[in-house]
Amino acid sequence: MSNEVTLAADIGGTHIRAAMVDSLGNISHEQRIEAHLSGNNCSEADLIHTLSTLFQGMLEQHPEIQAIGMGFPGFFIGNTGILAASPNLPQLHDVPLASQLSQHLSLPVMVQNDALCAAMGEYRFGAGKGQSNLLHITLGTGVGGGLILNNMPYTGEGGMAMEFGHLRTSYSDNSRLCGCGGYGCVEAYASATALISQYFEHTGTSSTPRDIYALACQGDIFPKQLFEQAGKHLGRAIAEAVKLLDVRTITISGGLIGAWPILEPAIKASLDTNLIPPLKGKVNVLASSLQDHAGLLGAAALTSLEV
Amino acid sequence: MSNEVTLAADIGGTHIRAAMVDSLGNISHEQRIEAHLSGNNCSEADLIHTLSTLFQGMLEQHPEIQAIGMGFPGFFIGNTGILAASPNLPQLHDVPLASQLSQHLSLPVMVQNDALCAAMGEYRFGAGKGQSNLLHITLGTGVGGGLILNNMPYTGEGGMAMEFGHLRTSYSDNSRLCGCGGYGCVEAYASATALISQYFEHTGTSSTPRDIYALACQGDIFPKQLFEQAGKHLGRAIAEAVKLLDVRTITISGGLIGAWPILEPAIKASLDTNLIPPLKGKVNVLASSLQDHAGLLGAAALTSLEV
Repeated sequence: MSNEVTLAADIGGTHIRAAMVDSLGNISHEQRIEAHLSGNNCSEADLIHTLSTLFQGMLEQHPEIQAIGMGFPGFFIGNTGILAASPNLPQLHDVPLASQLSQHLSLPVMVQNDALCAAMGEYRFGAGKGQSNLLHITLGTGVGGGLILNNMPYTGEGGMAMEFGHLRTSYSDNSRLCGCGGYGCVEAYASATALISQYFEHTGTSSTPRDIYALACQGDIFPKQLFEQAGKHLGRAIAEAVKLLDVRTITISGGLIGAWPILEPAIKASLDTNLIPPLKGKVNVLASSLQDHAGLLGAAALTSLEV
Repeated sequence: MSNEVTLAADIGGTHIRAAMVDSLGNISHEQRIEAHLSGNNCSEADLIHTLSTLFQGMLEQHPEIQAIGMGFPGFFIGNTGILAASPNLPQLHDVPLASQLSQHLSLPVMVQNDALCAAMGEYRFGAGKGQSNLLHITLGTGVGGGLILNNMPYTGEGGMAMEFGHLRTSYSDNSRLCGCGGYGCVEAYASATALISQYFEHTGTSSTPRDIYALACQGDIFPKQLFEQAGKHLGRAIAEAVKLLDVRTITISGGLIGAWPILEPAIKASLDTNLIPPLKGKVNVLASSLQDHAGLLGAAALTSLEV
């Protein structure tokens, strides 16, 4: 394989991250660009125009770019590059995002769900390198997930696979309310939002996960319990995924990964409790080795998929 | 496609069911043969000898048979036909079951996990016909599952995918003990065993699921609650699978399916409670249309897979 250069982009609601990535996973020219791609006012034409203008500028500066790979917060069916729907852009449906951009830019373009791109990054360049099957979990404002099965991104029938954050890990009457409107989702225990709101409920003080973790490390009991509880619920949800899919490698990234020294033992103990005997001890749960570059690297890796 | 005739077999611990199946799913010459294929005394050679002798006899009577498809209670990795392990035959590991039988019988032989064969049957000939993705659940002594993804049986990395019966649907302190040694598995609420033991605990009387269901239909409150509870837990487990996999068609077979008039509304209400909003109302839960023939039909269907 020649060392092809890909333009990789990770599209958020208010910002776009972009970089050039070579086939060995080396990142260069990383940039963060303000761009408002959310809300009811963003039409399909706006979206295509904003993205193609941005990419065109980068292509002019870097004519060595041979393909574009992009992570986008939305539902994609298989590897078609068709955006079925996006929570951030409620009026858009079935937008042939990859093919329209490809036509505008005269280059191959691949697009996939952003969490699934992070999974691709871990699979290709990170803690899951060398595995054929991988479950990747992102711990940020929410809890997201991406799944690689038989070396391919898995999207499910309607592109909504891996709503990992909404697996239920509590059915009791006092299960916490989740942002999705349901109760007892793992996201209601193991996201930054969940940590912040539980800390506030208990202490009356607003804090950040980083500061709550610092308190835990200083020996404060409640902050430590919050992270242990997050790990317990993550272990439960991972166990469900393993019992259904028999995936053996789980990678975890995101803002909360800084709390790994408390999260890891809690996750592993809970996973062990909830697996069936023949699967106990057979699953590797690993912190991401890519910091916050998993998404960009995975977007780049999309362009070398044989679809 | 010519109307090929396949010898289909479903291997149990004490009996083998076998039949001839044509490519339209017509079953003939069905038989049930006593055969003890379980325990520590059954070696690899015994297993191959027993099965090839049995099949040889049928092939001599029916020279029109062109292939053999078999469901077996064990773990198979992909469609290799290699038995990784079997709970019934603890001393056997990595037995190339399909290739050894094929060599003995000079015919193509395909083998797959028995619950996955039932899923294949529903996918090819039953309530899931026409779907590319299907989750099939068997409600018998235990609760089993099989998964078809992108028109292929899905086995997972070590052949242990779809331990559906051991998804946890209760985490409370009084969660019921499951046969697997864990607590709160859906099998501890929605299997024949679970119904019988809960009925006995409550009434001090031994009964059968059929009789318990008859009482429920006569208006007895506790028997009805048992089936409603089974449906509630099944709905929870199905919701978890849907949120992970985005499969939209669920088929259910097995001995308890006679209680469908109570199970169905309980399953659907619970599924609706536990799905995220964009998936609510998008999932079909269907009773099997194949009675107890799903496994044999699916075993036959294995032989036409392009692997």
